[in-house]
Amino acid sequence: MESWTIENTSLNNQELLTNESLFSLGNGYIGVRGNFEEGYQEGMTSIRGTYLNAFHDITDIEYGEKLHGFPGKQQKLLNVIDAQTVEMHVNGERFSLFHGDLTDYKRTLNMKKGFVERSMKWKSNQGDVVKITSRKLVSFHTREFYTIEWTVEPLTSRPVDIKMVSRVNGDVANFSDPNDPRVASGHSKRSKVTGVKEANGCFVVENETYESCLKVACATSTSFYFDKYDYDFTLDNKGIEEVYTATINEPVSFVKSIVYTDTLRHGEQTVEKAIEILNEERHVPFYEHLKRQENDLNQFWSTADITISGDEELQKGIRFNLFHLLQSAGQDEVSNIAAKGLSGEGYEGHYFWDTEIYMLPMFLMTHPEMAKKLLLHRYSLLDSARERAKEVGHKEGALFPWRTITGTECSAFFPAGTAQYHISADIAYSFIQYDLVTGDEQFFKEYSAEVLMETARLWLDTGHFYKGEFRIDNVTGPDEYTCIVNNNFFTNVMAQYNLEWAKKAFDRLKDYDHSLIEKLGVTEEEAARWEKAARTMYLPYDEERGINPQDDTFLQKAVWDFENTPSDHYPLLLNYHPLTLYRYQVCKQADTILAHFLLEDTADEETIARSYDYYEKVTTHDSSLSYCVFSIMAAKLGKVDKAYDYFMKTARLDLDNTHGNTKDGLHMANMGGTWLAIVFGFGGVRVKESGLSFAPNLPKEWGGCTFHVYYQGNVVQVEMEEAKTVYTLVQGNQLAFNHKGQSITATKDCVVTVTH
Amino acid sequence: MESWTIENTSLNNQELLTNESLFSLGNGYIGVRGNFEEGYQEGMTSIRGTYLNAFHDITDIEYGEKLHGFPGKQQKLLNVIDAQTVEMHVNGERFSLFHGDLTDYKRTLNMKKGFVERSMKWKSNQGDVVKITSRKLVSFHTREFYTIEWTVEPLTSRPVDIKMVSRVNGDVANFSDPNDPRVASGHSKRSKVTGVKEANGCFVVENETYESCLKVACATSTSFYFDKYDYDFTLDNKGIEEVYTATINEPVSFVKSIVYTDTLRHGEQTVEKAIEILNEERHVPFYEHLKRQENDLNQFWSTADITISGDEELQKGIRFNLFHLLQSAGQDEVSNIAAKGLSGEGYEGHYFWDTEIYMLPMFLMTHPEMAKKLLLHRYSLLDSARERAKEVGHKEGALFPWRTITGTECSAFFPAGTAQYHISADIAYSFIQYDLVTGDEQFFKEYSAEVLMETARLWLDTGHFYKGEFRIDNVTGPDEYTCIVNNNFFTNVMAQYNLEWAKKAFDRLKDYDHSLIEKLGVTEEEAARWEKAARTMYLPYDEERGINPQDDTFLQKAVWDFENTPSDHYPLLLNYHPLTLYRYQVCKQADTILAHFLLEDTADEETIARSYDYYEKVTTHDSSLSYCVFSIMAAKLGKVDKAYDYFMKTARLDLDNTHGNTKDGLHMANMGGTWLAIVFGFGGVRVKESGLSFAPNLPKEWGGCTFHVYYQGNVVQVEMEEAKTVYTLVQGNQLAFNHKGQSITATKDCVVTVTH
Repeated sequence: MESWTIENTSLNNQELLTNESLFSLGNGYIGVRGNFEEGYQEGMTSIRGTYLNAFHDITDIEYGEKLHGFPGKQQKLLNVIDAQTVEMHVNGERFSLFHGDLTDYKRTLNMKKGFVERSMKWKSNQGDVVKITSRKLVSFHTREFYTIEWTVEPLTSRPVDIKMVSRVNGDVANFSDPNDPRVASGHSKRSKVTGVKEANGCFVVENETYESCLKVACATSTSFYFDKYDYDFTLDNKGIEEVYTATINEPVSFVKSIVYTDTLRHGEQTVEKAIEILNEERHVPFYEHLKRQENDLNQFWSTADITISGDEELQKGIRFNLFHLLQSAGQDEVSNIAAKGLSGEGYEGHYFWDTEIYMLPMFLMTHPEMAKKLLLHRYSLLDSARERAKEVGHKEGALFPWRTITGTECSAFFPAGTAQYHISADIAYSFIQYDLVTGDEQFFKEYSAEVLMETARLWLDTGHFYKGEFRIDNVTGPDEYTCIVNNNFFTNVMAQYNLEWAKKAFDRLKDYDHSLIEKLGVTEEEAARWEKAARTMYLPYDEERGINPQDDTFLQKAVWDFENTPSDHYPLLLNYHPLTLYRYQVCKQADTILAHFLLEDTADEETIARSYDYYEKVTTHDSSLSYCVFSIMAAKLGKVDKAYDYFMKTARLDLDNTHGNTKDGLHMANMGGTWLAIVFGFGGVRVKESGLSFAPNLPKEWGGCTFHVYYQGNVVQVEMEEAKTVYTLVQGNQLAFNHKGQSITATKDCVVTVTH
Repeated sequence: MESWTIENTSLNNQELLTNESLFSLGNGYIGVRGNFEEGYQEGMTSIRGTYLNAFHDITDIEYGEKLHGFPGKQQKLLNVIDAQTVEMHVNGERFSLFHGDLTDYKRTLNMKKGFVERSMKWKSNQGDVVKITSRKLVSFHTREFYTIEWTVEPLTSRPVDIKMVSRVNGDVANFSDPNDPRVASGHSKRSKVTGVKEANGCFVVENETYESCLKVACATSTSFYFDKYDYDFTLDNKGIEEVYTATINEPVSFVKSIVYTDTLRHGEQTVEKAIEILNEERHVPFYEHLKRQENDLNQFWSTADITISGDEELQKGIRFNLFHLLQSAGQDEVSNIAAKGLSGEGYEGHYFWDTEIYMLPMFLMTHPEMAKKLLLHRYSLLDSARERAKEVGHKEGALFPWRTITGTECSAFFPAGTAQYHISADIAYSFIQYDLVTGDEQFFKEYSAEVLMETARLWLDTGHFYKGEFRIDNVTGPDEYTCIVNNNFFTNVMAQYNLEWAKKAFDRLKDYDHSLIEKLGVTEEEAARWEKAARTMYLPYDEERGINPQDDTFLQKAVWDFENTPSDHYPLLLNYHPLTLYRYQVCKQADTILAHFLLEDTADEETIARSYDYYEKVTTHDSSLSYCVFSIMAAKLGKVDKAYDYFMKTARLDLDNTHGNTKDGLHMANMGGTWLAIVFGFGGVRVKESGLSFAPNLPKEWGGCTFHVYYQGNVVQVEMEEAKTVYTLVQGNQLAFNHKGQSITATKDCVVTVTH
């Protein structure tokens, strides 16, 4: 059972901010950081935050020099009304973990049951001893709901006077740090309180944002379980305070029920809706919420869980990553998965390519219905992408923004933002993957085909034919240490695939449904141009080294002087001007190597192997999106030890805070990357038009590893061991797949064992 | 005489802002826009400005995403204390050109004498008629001084009550327009009044800037020339008001004497120094100031003037440009020539490469002592350039900022700013030109050699050897429509020249003075590396087209679709995202063509001719730095008609406001370009190690053209006519030069006539 929990067994003041991210709870809609309900001590920093996925204000982007097409506005995920606060006073002395005497402290994130618990024994300065247990749960059953329970037990013989203070505070702001480009600067206060009221034991605080004029309502109610107590409440123009006082000599418990509604999901009736939901939930006992939560999580873990024998810390790390992916995934029409999920404010709650390339695969192959919702959200941004293409200067097509919440470009630095045109192909790729994994023709016809054709149009308008080849100039690939280049290999292969599939979509639809083709005005000639551009796509290849160059001139540059770069100069982006970085062969992350993973058939195995060896030497992994790709490719190339080393850097990146900025939120793409590294890396899973295939390669450190994949209505359980792989069809009747070149058909109730 | 003046003969409300720039006066230190002393009407915009060259505040540069090495601060030229205001009331009615009845209006900029005069006959609404003449003069004799004179003559028989109000206002701010990237946005109010006082008939207003804490003092005094008048004055916390009232029946005159001192030039004693200078100047009669001014201007025009017969408007245009160059040129240790001179606030008063490449040659070859001061100022920024190199990530060398006042980088958009590394070679080039033109060995030893060697170090640390060639990656050339490229031809040839001359400097100094070599720690080995890098410099050449590509991949891009670009989409930078521009073959301005002008021996004549034809087709001339270069190169290539067409676009660019933004200040580099186009273009002047040469090519539209050039202690007058060129040595005893391949020696008192 321990490998289902993450624990703090002592209080470390240096780790408080990091732990706020690690112990954050969420359900795809609400995210609550792992703050202490009672707060820290005066003078200590806390990023005290509650977020609603996509709930944002609009802020100005400032430029010293603003050129045409630079976005003037961006969205910013807002810290909303703070309902976390619960304070306690024992015989008049305020409880805090930072004074008095703390023993038996334990904080636990229970990932199987989906809640956080703190249990502690505390002795006040006056000598009173109490045992406190606080539990927090953000509900998957009712996405608008979360709840906090405190139980307090006096451990001294004499009765103690206890005071519980519960607050809801609408006067909130975001965290800001002007010196770190990776966290927001300025614009920290972006909403105002517009209403505070009490109605039949419910309290409601309403906020409205400054510019986007979005409203959020937070309805709360509290209960105090003890025979006799006094109660009072106060409302002011910022929020609510409730006070319970009692003299206790036995355990007492306090429960706070919290509901958030917002304009994006609940329209104008946020208050009414919040009260309605609260009234449904507030009378459900806490243990019942726990039960519901566990049921919902069981459903998730049934296919998402991965078990590894032989390394409990790793097992925890993997579940931790999967659990947070679940907690972050927007499942409604207005939200997606932010780069930091709902665990922090880094990257301002924006959605990047991270979703499609790093996170979506886990959902797609374990819970395709969740992947579908993420794709539907991305589809909803297609019109904005069409507008953006025009704004930048394209005649047609859809250019998806590098970072966004509502669909408009929010990147303030285009060389590593808007210039990353590959995001449009990445999105197309994810719709193709969805098609291959689910075979959902209705979805293809209604959504995927349109995305494929509009992005294909972008490529045609971006690239050009030169000496018989189709070339794409002036874009930035995934590696942000080399910006604005011609013929980035990654971009070109992804665009090629995009164009091929646009032609396929045209051919597929024209046989039975012309409506989309007519709506978009696609002609046979246009579709033929897509095919031609794909067929003649220029893919740079260096004869001398036998590798794919990252772009036209990457290999002509000098190699970065790694030997003379002090270790405290990493990450390089915090220590060198971008121009200096661009001038050398040095990669922030996988670029060509990622292309070789996503589209492995575009290069032969020897080229892939040589490229791997070459780029590995010049990659700093300053991006958290890098290790997992290197791990997958090392596994593919049979370098299992190396794959394992890289994998271990992904698995506990946040738990061990190896990037040093977990306080700003969890690295969600890396978390998705952990799943990819196991399933696509060690499991060797691929999904292509030719079908599903496996190529297991178990690291020698592990006794075994079990995972599940969904494929076209079936779910297969894969148990990898050193000497064999066992395939069990746990859903569906029959599934044909390939195991290292061998065709296998698994049928219901029949276990297939392949010995190595 | 008319071709010495620029005139307005009627009042055009639409042209007021443009005329403020055109009629601006300056002396390299003070600049005063051509505002009306009495102001416009309520609700009309005026960019009312007085500037002191280099007098700046420090402001924050905002970034949506700030990366390492992005400057966080910049300097901004400030609008200083406004002493222009003179108001007049006639029989209680306030005089304004925008009411009443205006006849005989004429505003004249007299470029031979150096003042602006407005004369006007005005009938008030009450029917009183007065003749008013106002004159403004910014003194070259005493750089801290300027003066305004008004004469008022009643033209009605009955006496009129006249009231003259003179003001000095310290509560000033800069102009701002958030929607145009070429003018400043925000930060408009950047100084506060710190003192207002009266002392013995002098008034002093002091301002201090917010961040740079620079002080400026403005001392003024006024005189009213009439038998009998009343006088009063008021001081408040923003400035001064003086009021003269009289009943007049004959002409009366009013004179205002104004002195500016600042911390940059006068240290802490700004007030004392201002009063001292004012006391020297205030008693000098206005006509005496006029005389001094004319003397100073005669001295300038003696070698700087260019006469052209056959086109009076053009003649005016040329003198206008030269006059404004003179007015803009900082001649002290803290200032240089801003992109807009002292005529407006565009580009925030920053110094760019414009000085060295476009403006300095005129000074160098007509008034080398002025060029020397400009170079000394640039030399004073060398230490900052060394620091900047380190900051960006270089191990050594000097990286001059793309735009600056005090020496720190002020560019907020590095792809078209810091990335323009060529500025360091451009500066080196200008020191070399100075050496060639003056032969001033002392200057070379003390200043030029150090600049050459420190910039050479930058190139060595920026480029690298690859397959036996020295290559320079990731820089931006002059053409800002194609940023961050490898092996920009312009940059590489300029760096090559820079490196060659650094080696020469080393060899020259080591023969007789080791102090600099020792100070910099240059070794024989290092100097040999400079020579090797220069010798093996990779200069891209396209065999197929027989031209020099602008950079490694420029010619592989698609050509911009000029045919389908509506004319209102120019300048392209205001209508397309930079990425879109970068993706095509389209140039904002001369780039390779400029390289072929500055260093014509790096390519053969055929290549230069083919390159000219090629780039001409893809250049939009959206930069005002473009036409003159195309004109020079067309002249060189014998396309005199074309050269003439381009020239005509430079000559009156501001007078005709062809770029539409003259209101923000004059295009100084273009003004320098006019001189270049005549002297280096039609005159075919070149200065190389081999000496001075001419290759005259008179446009058929002109009867003749006369100019002077200075060369190594001599001044030669060149009279170009259709059938002959006449060389007259007007200073010096003997001068050998080359005329279209023919060696000529001119001697004193001997006119050399070459017939064509």
